[in-house]
Amino acid sequence: MQAVKVFNNNAVSVVMPDGREAILVGNGLGFGRRPGDVIDKSRVSKVYYVQNELQTKFLKMLDNVTPQVMQAAERISLAAEEQGILLSSKSTISLVDHISFALERVEKGTFLPNLVLSETRMLYPKEYAVGQRALELVRQFCGVQLPEDEAGYIALHLVAGAADGALAYDTVKFVKAVKEIICDTYHCTFEEESLETTRLTVHLKFLAARILRHTPWQDAGLESMYTVLLQRDSRNEVCLQRINAYLRQEFDYELDHQEQVYLLIHLTKIVR
Amino acid sequence: MQAVKVFNNNAVSVVMPDGREAILVGNGLGFGRRPGDVIDKSRVSKVYYVQNELQTKFLKMLDNVTPQVMQAAERISLAAEEQGILLSSKSTISLVDHISFALERVEKGTFLPNLVLSETRMLYPKEYAVGQRALELVRQFCGVQLPEDEAGYIALHLVAGAADGALAYDTVKFVKAVKEIICDTYHCTFEEESLETTRLTVHLKFLAARILRHTPWQDAGLESMYTVLLQRDSRNEVCLQRINAYLRQEFDYELDHQEQVYLLIHLTKIVR
Repeated sequence: MQAVKVFNNNAVSVVMPDGREAILVGNGLGFGRRPGDVIDKSRVSKVYYVQNELQTKFLKMLDNVTPQVMQAAERISLAAEEQGILLSSKSTISLVDHISFALERVEKGTFLPNLVLSETRMLYPKEYAVGQRALELVRQFCGVQLPEDEAGYIALHLVAGAADGALAYDTVKFVKAVKEIICDTYHCTFEEESLETTRLTVHLKFLAARILRHTPWQDAGLESMYTVLLQRDSRNEVCLQRINAYLRQEFDYELDHQEQVYLLIHLTKIVR
Repeated sequence: MQAVKVFNNNAVSVVMPDGREAILVGNGLGFGRRPGDVIDKSRVSKVYYVQNELQTKFLKMLDNVTPQVMQAAERISLAAEEQGILLSSKSTISLVDHISFALERVEKGTFLPNLVLSETRMLYPKEYAVGQRALELVRQFCGVQLPEDEAGYIALHLVAGAADGALAYDTVKFVKAVKEIICDTYHCTFEEESLETTRLTVHLKFLAARILRHTPWQDAGLESMYTVLLQRDSRNEVCLQRINAYLRQEFDYELDHQEQVYLLIHLTKIVR
């Protein structure tokens, strides 16, 4: 580093290798130096950085973040990477924020139930596994056992921090296609914000999760419902045939009677 | 601020009002000053703060964060507050991180589908509303329209950043109680990680959402299923009576036949 200004024998302003302005302080490091002279790094005892308003705001927020939390967050990012979840460097900040908040909650004895925990576990298994590993790492570095609900929040952090969602595409594609078949067959439209549409959408996502992971059901307990539901509306059979045709073509899968029962139950709430 | 060390006429080290060590630089601000003397603020042109390793790491990660994103995040925190969602100051960091990431995705043309979007909208309506307001604020400050999926992610950020989850407690209590009645009636246990249990849990949460918000169903399309399902297992009627008794007592609510059909359908997958 070269001196920009020499204040006195012990203080010199420089431009750091990363381009940031700083003042270096240390015994004698400015002695006999002039602008442009190289500064002896070994003499530096403190580095002062120029800080803009934005940076100051940030650091103020991070006042209580401990190095342990930082370490845990870095290890979690690493664990995510090992699972093929590529995060930006910024995601570590989110993790730090999240962990220190979770620790605060444990400290205060408040509990934050995670209402989308089961869905997260089912729909993002890879991220959820990292979330569970995160609880271990936090226990190891910070000495605190966080509740399982936090594994879900951390998993969603990883989901939101991913560069793109290739894995989720198939699910979205699936849900969209099946909904189009339904609309087309029954000449209906979906009120996206209604409870019924949400339930159908949730159902279809879970169905997609099962199909994409090739875990069909074996149970036959709902067989008796099948005929009853099928006969309720003449369009039901057409709709199921079209959905099955789509699934065969795209996913090499066919709904069994069980699954058709579920789907028809959800449809009765939407189709009139 | 009082001078700690006077380097020369233009540079003085001080302790800032917030307790942080800094070097102030400005024309003549050190002239004739000694340690303990008050420094004339109006002469300060630059402030250099001492920075530890942790802070340096943080600021490095935030290299690309623009003031616009910061402003948007602050306004979103404010919008959350207006909705009674109290966040820690740290949550703004998470928001900044999240927004700048979302902007990056839009810029690169990658899309990150949110698989828990519909659940988030249903289960956390207040947070979701702020998420939608957030999209407006981002458009206003950063000039970019983020997709609806991001409203869901932001809502979950707000959920995870809340001091406690009082609103979610009732839902969790409800799900737990109903599951206990089921286990007790059928002498069964739940495999928490199985797809079937997850689906039942999701169902119960949605049921809770409806009950807690007093929005009963009106449709009677599944009436024909009711008798068939009830007769499949003699314990079904007992279980439904017990659940209804609990709901009457705790929530002044009673399941109609429709809702009982749904519940029984889910139960057939779990109870043998």
